[in-house]
This record gives sequence, structure tokens and C-alpha cells, in this order.
Amino acid sequence: MAGTGSRDRALRERAQAVIPGGMYGHQSVGLLPDDYPQFFEKGEGAHLWDVDGRRYLDFMCAYGPNLFGYAHPEIDAAFVRQLGQGDTLTGPTALMVQLAEALTGMVSHADWAIFCKNGTDATSMALTVARAHTKRRVVVRAKGAYHGAAPWCTPRPAGVIDTDRAHQIFYDYNDVGSLEAAVAQAGDDLACIFAAPFKHDAFVDQAEPDPAYARRARELCDERGALLVVDEVRAGFRLSRDCSWSRIGVQPDLSTWGKCVANGHPISVLLGSDKARAAAASVYVTGSFWYQAAPMAAALETLRLVRETDYLERMTALGERLRQGLAERAAAAGFGFRQTGPATMPLFLFDDDPDLRRGFCFSSEMLARGVYVHPWHNMFLCAAMTEADIDAALDAAEDAFAALKRQAGALPPVEKLAFLTAGAH
Amino acid sequence: MAGTGSRDRALRERAQAVIPGGMYGHQSVGLLPDDYPQFFEKGEGAHLWDVDGRRYLDFMCAYGPNLFGYAHPEIDAAFVRQLGQGDTLTGPTALMVQLAEALTGMVSHADWAIFCKNGTDATSMALTVARAHTKRRVVVRAKGAYHGAAPWCTPRPAGVIDTDRAHQIFYDYNDVGSLEAAVAQAGDDLACIFAAPFKHDAFVDQAEPDPAYARRARELCDERGALLVVDEVRAGFRLSRDCSWSRIGVQPDLSTWGKCVANGHPISVLLGSDKARAAAASVYVTGSFWYQAAPMAAALETLRLVRETDYLERMTALGERLRQGLAERAAAAGFGFRQTGPATMPLFLFDDDPDLRRGFCFSSEMLARGVYVHPWHNMFLCAAMTEADIDAALDAAEDAFAALKRQAGALPPVEKLAFLTAGAH
Repeated sequence: MAGTGSRDRALRERAQAVIPGGMYGHQSVGLLPDDYPQFFEKGEGAHLWDVDGRRYLDFMCAYGPNLFGYAHPEIDAAFVRQLGQGDTLTGPTALMVQLAEALTGMVSHADWAIFCKNGTDATSMALTVARAHTKRRVVVRAKGAYHGAAPWCTPRPAGVIDTDRAHQIFYDYNDVGSLEAAVAQAGDDLACIFAAPFKHDAFVDQAEPDPAYARRARELCDERGALLVVDEVRAGFRLSRDCSWSRIGVQPDLSTWGKCVANGHPISVLLGSDKARAAAASVYVTGSFWYQAAPMAAALETLRLVRETDYLERMTALGERLRQGLAERAAAAGFGFRQTGPATMPLFLFDDDPDLRRGFCFSSEMLARGVYVHPWHNMFLCAAMTEADIDAALDAAEDAFAALKRQAGALPPVEKLAFLTAGAH
Repeated sequence: MAGTGSRDRALRERAQAVIPGGMYGHQSVGLLPDDYPQFFEKGEGAHLWDVDGRRYLDFMCAYGPNLFGYAHPEIDAAFVRQLGQGDTLTGPTALMVQLAEALTGMVSHADWAIFCKNGTDATSMALTVARAHTKRRVVVRAKGAYHGAAPWCTPRPAGVIDTDRAHQIFYDYNDVGSLEAAVAQAGDDLACIFAAPFKHDAFVDQAEPDPAYARRARELCDERGALLVVDEVRAGFRLSRDCSWSRIGVQPDLSTWGKCVANGHPISVLLGSDKARAAAASVYVTGSFWYQAAPMAAALETLRLVRETDYLERMTALGERLRQGLAERAAAAGFGFRQTGPATMPLFLFDDDPDLRRGFCFSSEMLARGVYVHPWHNMFLCAAMTEADIDAALDAAEDAFAALKRQAGALPPVEKLAFLTAGAH
């Protein structure tokens, strides 16, 4: 933790005592460079402050939820107004109906909504609804794709048992042949096909969806009477104001949403078409806080901004400005630097960098210059970013590439990522 | 919906279009009397207002979360302060460490904490941690006990498949012989025993835990190297300021918390002892909003009130006042009226009432008099209630028993609860 400040170090020591391993889940910095801070103090707009007072332009956006800026005045005001009126009550408020109407009005395939808290709630419910609808068991899903952290899908299988993962068959994203083979293997037991809006796996290049693959997934579901699930939890409203596969003309039966639906307030959603309505009504799903009104008020305000502002066009333009600027600077410095995925959710990987030592060095150099980037997970732009922010990030990158160039020949191995290369030799 | 007002009726119609079945989960009024409102407008202290402006003394307390009163000034102020500072960020704040320290300082068996959103997150994680710790599969749990709504435990199995429920063996709560038989059947594959703090199943009398049963559960886990899990999600801090089995001298390895930890703000917790720490650090669990700071600020303030006020003694005294007053009034009216479970979480059932027609009639008569009670689920007192509230409820009950007496001979069957008696003849 060489570079981290003293408050962060002190908190990590205290956390070691009362949190298993010191931190858990996707916000653990266990697999990030040692100088990345674990604990934060404040968020405002596109910026974050760590507990040692250092300010960052934040390209992680809370791993997605921050779409319009941290502590957004209108969204948080809507939340706080509703909090004073009624939040977690003995039943829902009218906001639940209004929010379901708003979402089904925006997302083409959707006729109904079920609200929950975690993205994993929505994906797990999608699977249960598909099984109820088809009376079949098998889910066909892409190898390496993240659909949550329940035992059926968590990426690290400690504590997961054989039966938790039963009735799953995997395909390679964008590979029609492998999708067809998986579906054939499922035979007459196919309940659903899961797909991410684009390939956004960790540690590898991202990929846009091939329309032929998306269309074939739709056809196979129709031929087999199975349901197509598009998991928008990570990408929702950063590609489209609708389900993102609308852009390639493919409508799922179910889509799962979370993260940015209420700009950081906790709510996730399963949306479905009429075909799956009876099955959705038959499953028993619930949670202590699923009927909470204040996050629904925040979601209604967030969706209003999604519909009524040019946030998506601005964010996309900023992402393209970033991409082009980085490409120029990487090339000038002589690095093979791959930027993949949509402009609003980029991933950076260096060529010839199997254990990410270049990525780690570059990320640390960016961090030292006040720009928080991620060396192996897709990043997120937000609508609170400005051209000046992007230009500041590009200035930082120019210096970071130069610093990397000075160190590139002598970078130490990244021991915490040794698993990436362990099978390679 | 004879008794419901016009705004409620209109919202139900709109909900039918955009929410499967019109509503889902435990806050659906589908299995409540027809005059119960589905939608609420406001909560304040111990009272609720429905969307038609009717005010109720609320004995459901949001099904648990409302411990200190709706819209509690200090708790919500702590939340809002933190919201302005930073809530869902790219990493946690210092509050996560503080909250883990506060909980492990209060709950005797606990050495560490993992925070999540749903009660089901905590119970499912407990199972995963137990399986990781033991490298075994079987969970032994009480028949009819509610531990959440994931496929492994949801009470209504639509969409649930065979493998979701594999490796589970059931016992009868408080029955040492049946517990021993279940453990014997698990053989060398026992991962954990789950227990509720007391028997709080729906539709049947509640029961306090028999200390002999609790001690035997502990012994069996120790003999077999399995983990004991006490599921405090529903009962936490309404029986004790510690894990509730501390009162009978039994410490679990894991305990699950939710509902009232932040007085309605969304947070749940898995607490564990050192024995399970390595296993807990090995599992991959996470959620988009699990690191949210504002609910942690609310939780810290809630726990301060738990520690520093006499809320528990006051709430218990109010519950006893209610119980005694109802017993007197029921007896005077000539009804066999069973009040079971702890005074702070009562359940009412009438004798000779297999399809709950008396319970439905009594509940409706209470509702008409401004008191929201539940005919088949345990209720919850909160610390915002006063002796005057309880006395008002008792006055309502005197009238409600009289009204029930007038109607008792001619009550219609409760068709929506026909399943309760379908197997009885």
C-alpha cells in the first residue's frame, strides 16, 4: 500500500479486524495496484475524494450507478422529499405504479416491471421466471459473462456446490455456432438464453454484439419456446434510452436493470413482455426493502433526465473524445493500447501485457495525476463530465504514458494477478 | 375491494397493467381482507396513511424495519447528511468499518460483518459460507420457517427446480428428536443448522425457543464440525440488544440481520465468529449498492438508539399491555383468542377458525377503527408507540370483538385462504 495515505492505511487495518479479508466483492481493491485507495470520503458530480483528501476524476462511477453525477441536486432532492413523506412502509406507494409505467413506456419490449434491490435479484428472478414459464431447467449463457454473485452465477465458486450450477450450458459470446451447439445440447429442456448487451467480461477485450448472433439468439428462443434475457444491469441507459439490443433490432422477453436506474439509489428491475407475465405472477419473490418509495422517486427523476436531456449524446461524444485522444497519445508514446467496448463504457488493455504490469503502472500514474481508471474492468463515463474533464484526463494520460515508457523495461511482475498467466505456460 | 377507497382502487387497476398480478411478495394484499389498502401515502412515528387519507396505528411496522418510528428525525438526518457527502461511490467509506465495529461490539458471537441489502442476501450468504467452511453440502432447517425468497428457500416454488432445493433436510422447530434425526440423515455431509430465534411461521401459533432444543442444535454443530446459523432478520433488536439466543445462553457461529438495522433504510448483515472468518473471506459476494454509505450512517444512529435508550423495555411493556388488554377483552366477548410469540412481535389467531374467517372479520373491524393488524403473520411493535396508542388499540379491539360477535354466526368462508383447509378433510 505504498502510495496510500495514512487514513486509508489506518482504516484498512481496522477493517482487517471486522470485515473478512479486509473487504469483499467488487469494491475490494485487492486486485488493484497497491496505491489505489480503499476508502472514500465524498463524491460530487464526476469527482471523488478519498479519505486522505485526494480528489479524482472518477471513470468508475461507482461501477455504474453514477450516471448523472454524484450527489445530483434534482435526483437527491426527489429522494429526500419522498423520504420525509414515506419510504419503507407496510405497503408500496403510488410511485411503484408510476415507475413501472415510466419504464414500460421507455423500454420497447417491456409490458411489466418487478422492482428489487440487487442486480443479482433481477438476473436470478429472470432465470426463475423463465423456468416457471417453460417448465424447463436449462439456462444457456456466455462463458465468462458476469450476471451477478448468487451461487448459480458468482465468478468465484467457494461455497458453491454442484447442484447450484446444474442445468447450465455455456457458449462463446458472438459465436453463432457455439450458441447453436449449446442450445442443441439443452435439447427439450431449454428455459432461456442469457446475453449481455455487449461482451463486458473482466481482463479481456470487450466486444460489441454481432447482430447475427443477437438475431440467432432470438430465433432459437422462438423456435424452442424459450425466453431471451438481456442483462442490462451494467450497461442500462449508457447505450440507449431503450433496451440496448433495440439498436440492432432484437427484442428480448426479459431484461434486467440496476446500477444507474436511480443514479446510485438502490433499486433494480426485472422487465418483461406479456408472454412472461403469467409466469412472473406465479413466482414468489420479495425483499424487506423492495417497496421503498424514496429510491423510486429518485428513479422517476433519473428517467426524466434520461428522456428529456441529451445526456447520452453528450456522454458518447465525451467517450469518443477520450478514445481518440488516448489513441493518439498511446501511439505517440509507442504503445499498443487497445480501447474496446462502447465509448461510454471503455476498457483499456496494453498489448504484450499478460499479467497487466503495464496496465497497473499506467493506472497508478493516472491515479497519481488525479484520474481514477481501472486496469482490467470496464469503466463508465457519466453525464456530469465535461470536455475540460476529458482534456484533463488526456493531459494526465500523456504524462502517464511517458512515465510508463521510462519504467516499461523494469516493471515488476504483478503477483496478485499471477492467476492470469498461471495457465499460459 | 369493497372497503377500499377510490385512489387505492384506481392504483390497483393501473398496477394490474404494469406489475405481474398487480403486486408481488409480502406486501401484496392478495391474502388479506378485501378492505385492506394496497397503497400508502405517508408514514410518521407509529402511524401510516393510505392513499385515500385514512390514518392507521400500524402494527406491521413495514413488516419489521420500522423500529423507532417512521421518518425518525435523528436517523433520517444522519442519512441525509451522509447522502449529501457521498452514498454509492466507487468504494466504501469509513462508515463501513465503524458499522462493523459497532455490530461486533454489540453482538456477542460476532467478530466480523458483511453488509448486503436483502435479508435473503444474508441468509443465502450464511449457507454459502457454511458450505465453504465445511466443504459439505447439507443444510438442516425447520419445516415451514421463512429464511427468504431465493430459489433455495422461497415458500412458493413456482420456477424453482429440483437442484435448487437439493441437500436440504427438515426438522420440526423445538423438537430435539426431529432435529437429531435430520442431523443423522445428513451424515458426514452436514454444513449447517439454520434456526429462527423463535418459531414465527405464518398461519400458525408462534413458539418461543425451547432452550433444550437450542442447546442441542449448538452441540450437534460442535460434534459434527458444522455451523449454527440464527436468522435474526425478522426479530433482530426486538428481543435483545444482542443475538436473541444469548438470552438462553446459546451462541451461533453466524447470524443474519436485516429489516430494522437502519430503521427502514436498506441494509442487511451477515455476522460471524472467527471460526468462519476464512470461509467468509473466500466466498465472492457483492451487490451494486452494498457499499452505500447513507444507510450505514442511518444504521450507526439506529444502533446508538438501541444501545442508549430504553426502547426495548418500553416496547416490551407496551406489548405486554396490549396482550393483557386483548386477552381480557377477548375473554369478555367469549372468544378463544390465542396471542403467541414475544410481546414485541405478537400473532393473533382465533380458536375454531380454520380458514381464518374470524381473524379476517376482526382484522377488518380493527382496520375500520384505524388500527392496522395482520390476520396470519406476526406483527411488530415499534418504539414510537405510546401507552395511549395501545389503549386506543384496546378500545378499537373491544368494539371489534363486539362487532365480530354480532357477525360470527354468519361469516362467509375466506375463499382466498381455502388452501389452509383444503388438505384438512
